[in-house]
Amino acid sequence: MNAEQAYAELVQHCKETATLRSCADLLGWDERTYLPPQGASHRGEQLALLARLVHERLTTPRLGELLTAVEGSAFTHPAESVSAATIREVRRTYDRAVKIPASLVQELARVTTQAQQVWQQARKNNDFASFRPWLEKVVALKQQEAQAVGFATVPYDALLDEYEPGATTGEITRLFATLRRELTPLLQAILASGRQARAEILAREYPVDRQQTFGQGAAAAIGFRFDAGRLDVTTHPFCSGIGPGDCRITTRYNPHHLNEAFFGILHEAGHGLYEQGLDPEHFGCAPGTAASLGIHESQSRLWENQVGRSRPFWEHFYPRAQELFPQALADVSLAVFLFAINEVKASFIRVEADEATYNLHIILRFELEQALISGDLKVSEVPGAWNEKFRQSFDLTPPTDTLGCLQDIHWSGGGIGYFPTYTLGNLYAAQFMAQARQDLPGLDDDFRGGSFTRLTGWLREKIHREGHRRSAGALCERVTGRPLQTAPLMAYLKQKYESLYEVTV
Amino acid sequence: MNAEQAYAELVQHCKETATLRSCADLLGWDERTYLPPQGASHRGEQLALLARLVHERLTTPRLGELLTAVEGSAFTHPAESVSAATIREVRRTYDRAVKIPASLVQELARVTTQAQQVWQQARKNNDFASFRPWLEKVVALKQQEAQAVGFATVPYDALLDEYEPGATTGEITRLFATLRRELTPLLQAILASGRQARAEILAREYPVDRQQTFGQGAAAAIGFRFDAGRLDVTTHPFCSGIGPGDCRITTRYNPHHLNEAFFGILHEAGHGLYEQGLDPEHFGCAPGTAASLGIHESQSRLWENQVGRSRPFWEHFYPRAQELFPQALADVSLAVFLFAINEVKASFIRVEADEATYNLHIILRFELEQALISGDLKVSEVPGAWNEKFRQSFDLTPPTDTLGCLQDIHWSGGGIGYFPTYTLGNLYAAQFMAQARQDLPGLDDDFRGGSFTRLTGWLREKIHREGHRRSAGALCERVTGRPLQTAPLMAYLKQKYESLYEVTV
Repeated sequence: MNAEQAYAELVQHCKETATLRSCADLLGWDERTYLPPQGASHRGEQLALLARLVHERLTTPRLGELLTAVEGSAFTHPAESVSAATIREVRRTYDRAVKIPASLVQELARVTTQAQQVWQQARKNNDFASFRPWLEKVVALKQQEAQAVGFATVPYDALLDEYEPGATTGEITRLFATLRRELTPLLQAILASGRQARAEILAREYPVDRQQTFGQGAAAAIGFRFDAGRLDVTTHPFCSGIGPGDCRITTRYNPHHLNEAFFGILHEAGHGLYEQGLDPEHFGCAPGTAASLGIHESQSRLWENQVGRSRPFWEHFYPRAQELFPQALADVSLAVFLFAINEVKASFIRVEADEATYNLHIILRFELEQALISGDLKVSEVPGAWNEKFRQSFDLTPPTDTLGCLQDIHWSGGGIGYFPTYTLGNLYAAQFMAQARQDLPGLDDDFRGGSFTRLTGWLREKIHREGHRRSAGALCERVTGRPLQTAPLMAYLKQKYESLYEVTV
Repeated sequence: MNAEQAYAELVQHCKETATLRSCADLLGWDERTYLPPQGASHRGEQLALLARLVHERLTTPRLGELLTAVEGSAFTHPAESVSAATIREVRRTYDRAVKIPASLVQELARVTTQAQQVWQQARKNNDFASFRPWLEKVVALKQQEAQAVGFATVPYDALLDEYEPGATTGEITRLFATLRRELTPLLQAILASGRQARAEILAREYPVDRQQTFGQGAAAAIGFRFDAGRLDVTTHPFCSGIGPGDCRITTRYNPHHLNEAFFGILHEAGHGLYEQGLDPEHFGCAPGTAASLGIHESQSRLWENQVGRSRPFWEHFYPRAQELFPQALADVSLAVFLFAINEVKASFIRVEADEATYNLHIILRFELEQALISGDLKVSEVPGAWNEKFRQSFDLTPPTDTLGCLQDIHWSGGGIGYFPTYTLGNLYAAQFMAQARQDLPGLDDDFRGGSFTRLTGWLREKIHREGHRRSAGALCERVTGRPLQTAPLMAYLKQKYESLYEVTV
């Protein structure tokens, strides 16, 4: 087999595997939007079959032969070429997939399906004891997975690599330690300021049909293409990039709260812009797929927070909001509104946290799950350890495990190693945005005029079109000239909150 | 390999193949309801890949080995047992699939995809000449397919068998000849009666949201389960039974016409009741699948026409319609409304035809496509032959091919042999309904009271739950005690129209 033939077959194989997986993505989207309740069981059968077929394709020995035939050939140079990136990423996922025994894959699927059901009940009933044996099983299986995959330094590296290829536990630990050290005084100053946002204005009447008009309009304004995507309603919002020309975002509307749907839509539209900006020519290969979950999250957070909670953005959108929601907002000034949507408050629930406290929620989880995987922390000790760490960060103790260690779905689903990508996303978002502001002077004037095309175009060229040609860290260096740092996020947060809360840190 | 093991593997194989196909069904439903326009090309890739994987599973030599191992074993007795029916139907589809060369399958897929596009333009522009070479290709390929599959009497048998397993061209020819002979005097009497329905009342204002409430309510009333199904909007309505617990019907609303959506919903809900009534335990095997397209169509026509256009049905629903559409119907009596929804009129377009003329449209197509496949009719002669036959049936000549031989999509898609199943459906519907009336005295009183459960239950037990344990013809004999005949349909039509049009035939 010559390298040309092998590479062509490799690419074809990857595209078909991605196409098959995209069928599962569509079924998954449907499951969470339109599936009739009685269809759930058959949907499970469909998804299990597709997962098996995809797994067979990812682990077929033929892929190993093709990789051997192309590695060391001209296709692997230069390192960031389409072919080199494609080959490198196939090698990474192939090695990972074949190292994990099929029995472990099946056991993980079986256990996490049940663990998620047990977790749902446990969270509802504030009953950690019933979830404990299942979390023990999940942790044990993830430990086995880490051992099977192998790692340079600590087992957690092996799990992290699934979500954030190229990142290491050590690097993230250092980055997060710095971030916590810098966040703490800012947060203390804010909480001690005595300034109070009028958050209740966001809990007035916001008719759902108008929220829909407003949110859809904003998503379109920032560049989400509705001829290549959709916005639907679901319980737990998500974005699903099915394939070229088809990216679907979802939200849920609360008629008594504006934030959930509006910032949710901006967040998912940010993910959606990334998916819509990937190069369709390389669909299924690294240059046409997202670089990492951290980079993906940076795109959602950038639009949700860096842009969507900024004054210039609302200088354009607030008159429109007042028109659409006169009963709720006619008597509310822009300043009052801006303060309300940027309120900082220590709270128990991660997904409701503001930009200042959010990352502390993540750091807590990152530390606990490392300790679980290393064996330093027993599952039975999780509630105590959670509450102690929470107290240290927020000077509050969760009154129940439902408001503490039972709040997130991730661990029950086997998603250990996923949490840090949220904070990486916040850090990348700030660093990218700072760079965009340098590269594109006058960006705030664009926003004030309701124009986002320069920023969207910059993100597309610098980030989306690059796909996964290089690791997230290398992409960040290429775009911003330096590795990921805490400084841009801290500078952004300080500027915002020092002015809102009239504090100096 | 012993027969037990082989049978278990065979069933598992069939269920998985059906599950994979059901993924394509969901993608197909989505394509016609919610797919963003830019996603069409990727959807094509997804469906082509799934079609290839399904075809591989249908033709894998392993299936041949399994069949050999179970045929002649205890699993094939008695003939209507679950296992015997399963094996018989796998043998039929396997033999058919392996007889057709892969090159012919691919060529048919390629040609019909293009032919459908050409046909769309040709119909729009009344340009048969541009469609002619494509129809020639399709006919030639279908002739090859018939030769490859083999047949007892005429090549058309081989094509028919794909849609109506067990039916023969000879039988249908005799049945349809009788039907035409009996329909002609009825139709002549109606057209000569001088009685005119006030059809314009159906073209008043019918607000779409109210049509939706009305249609959905009627579908639920006849037993369509919305916890195991959905109703969505599409351009060309269809019903898709995705799998157990998940059956989706679609419609389109015309704010200036009541019939399209309302009778369309009843029609699709009839298909849907069949799908929802199939035995989920046998999903993927003959006892859990529809017997034929003719039987499927009988279920839709039974609800759309036999029930849905009857006086007792409207004695229940008309007051509701008047409430929902007061502007359109407040001044219209039930008798005037009933006459309008049962108006008979010679018209050019099959899908708009009434119950008296509809089958003549089908017979014309059935005769033409037989002649095309046998070679007796050249494609270039189709417009002339169509118009001549149309004149014989309706004493009218289509002014354009758009209103003549270009109106239907079927031939461009390779669906030669499909048309007769529509009239078989009408005949089966009448024969089943006549039997149901015998078995369930007082059925009209049920309808007057808005209750359809006795009829739905009877259909489920007698037809839906039987699946494809036996051929459509054998099912009909089992349910009604005799083979398919024209008498029940003619009796039904005569009774209806002699009274409406005050004629005697």
